[in-house]
Amino acid sequence: MQLMRLGPYGHERPAVRADDGLVYDLSSVTRDIDGDFFAGCGIDRARDALAAGRLPKLDHVGLRVGAPVARPAAIVCVGQNYAAHAAECGVEPPTSPVIFLKHPNTLVGPYDDVLIPRGSSGIDYEVELAVVISQRAQYLDSPDDAMKYIAGYAVSNDVTERTFQFDLSGGQWSKGKCAPTFNPMGPGLVPADEVPSVQSLRLRSRVNGEPRQDSTTADMVFSVAFLVWHLSQFLTLEPGDIINTGTPEGVALSGRFPYLAEGDVVECEIEGLGCQRQVVKKA
Amino acid sequence: MQLMRLGPYGHERPAVRADDGLVYDLSSVTRDIDGDFFAGCGIDRARDALAAGRLPKLDHVGLRVGAPVARPAAIVCVGQNYAAHAAECGVEPPTSPVIFLKHPNTLVGPYDDVLIPRGSSGIDYEVELAVVISQRAQYLDSPDDAMKYIAGYAVSNDVTERTFQFDLSGGQWSKGKCAPTFNPMGPGLVPADEVPSVQSLRLRSRVNGEPRQDSTTADMVFSVAFLVWHLSQFLTLEPGDIINTGTPEGVALSGRFPYLAEGDVVECEIEGLGCQRQVVKKA
Repeated sequence: MQLMRLGPYGHERPAVRADDGLVYDLSSVTRDIDGDFFAGCGIDRARDALAAGRLPKLDHVGLRVGAPVARPAAIVCVGQNYAAHAAECGVEPPTSPVIFLKHPNTLVGPYDDVLIPRGSSGIDYEVELAVVISQRAQYLDSPDDAMKYIAGYAVSNDVTERTFQFDLSGGQWSKGKCAPTFNPMGPGLVPADEVPSVQSLRLRSRVNGEPRQDSTTADMVFSVAFLVWHLSQFLTLEPGDIINTGTPEGVALSGRFPYLAEGDVVECEIEGLGCQRQVVKKA
Repeated sequence: MQLMRLGPYGHERPAVRADDGLVYDLSSVTRDIDGDFFAGCGIDRARDALAAGRLPKLDHVGLRVGAPVARPAAIVCVGQNYAAHAAECGVEPPTSPVIFLKHPNTLVGPYDDVLIPRGSSGIDYEVELAVVISQRAQYLDSPDDAMKYIAGYAVSNDVTERTFQFDLSGGQWSKGKCAPTFNPMGPGLVPADEVPSVQSLRLRSRVNGEPRQDSTTADMVFSVAFLVWHLSQFLTLEPGDIINTGTPEGVALSGRFPYLAEGDVVECEIEGLGCQRQVVKKA
């Protein structure tokens, strides 16, 4: 089962994609897929309704796919969480998770265009495993305990403007992370209990069909469970909050590949979670 | 006129404090003071209703004062925006605004307790002028143009845990900025057109009655107008977004004053915008 949001930007309706590929309208269960939905056991209610045959089929031909989560209170990002990526950035792997935030309005659908911001000199792709929080999490007891606070997983592209990130904000990265369209997410959100092997998922990106990143979540410096537990010691995670858990090696910043240019096609894919595809355009 | 939100945390009701000090219930004009309120010309509607005598008086005795803005999509912070503060941090004044984000759930009322997070070794006060955005702002033409996108101003305390900020996140500051209660704001929001001299406001902080910070917004490295224009080149500002515009010299980080301890009383005050007061407690 995947949770989805289908329709024009800002007017998506909730849907569920069953394992047989058919898509059902979830409007009778919830108004939207957001923090309230997760906090109110929405995933269980969606699953029950689907299993009971209570959901009408949705004719989704031509409908845009939105990000699978609406209006997160925050998008928290983890930096340098793959050792090989830290190395290509010229730094040692961190001894404690490196975190920064993106403006939540960067969130767009998985097939929406990515816009090169004005004044840009180089934008980069970053395929990441996105973790979505199900209930308020503060001072959790342990990494094991943290898994109960995860609603599900999705593909995220943590698009980045490298000059804005490194050169224009005294070393604070958010300025290069917040341009409009800089967080494609989806296509679907897969419930956590349907992803038993979250630390062994292959994740890849391609540009114009050519391989760029190809790694596995087994290579994370800090595991998903550790990250959620750790973050809960420093801030309160809200239902619907998104954690981008870091990107593996193979980004353009490494010098091995060119930065994205107008007309490029970026694909980001995670095993079992789906594939997203964006065309790069000028803002 | 000041816009206020009064009542228990998460259940505040909108109110307006007239220039004669009387407080009126704004519930007939809006459900809350948030992005939709500002985008829908809420300040004009509140002012008209007050002038026309259409608002009932509110018996506010004993009511908690909440942050004057509900559920901002983002809290964007500007670092080192006063030259003397940059100097006390051991750095040159920035040549471009330094920005980072706080989790919006750090927002609390002006008289709420500030909680020392577990594992803390030193939390600090930072009085700041908060700017609230009135309408969506993207690629604004000029700093002059930017002033039209400001709803109003308030006092903000950008509470910070220095070890979390500097030592535990590879130099990315947000980890020390996001603990629960770390953004007291208020008491009121003063509409922008009632603050003609926003670049010459005295701003001060005190701890247990002793002066700490005492400066003026005239000393900002980047003016309010410049900041809003500049930010709009790198991200889209949403109605209700809050910009903390930086803190002047006199923080504990300077080494001249101790970090905050349990039982301390912090006051932050900006000329014409009011004074806030927090008691420091353990989380």
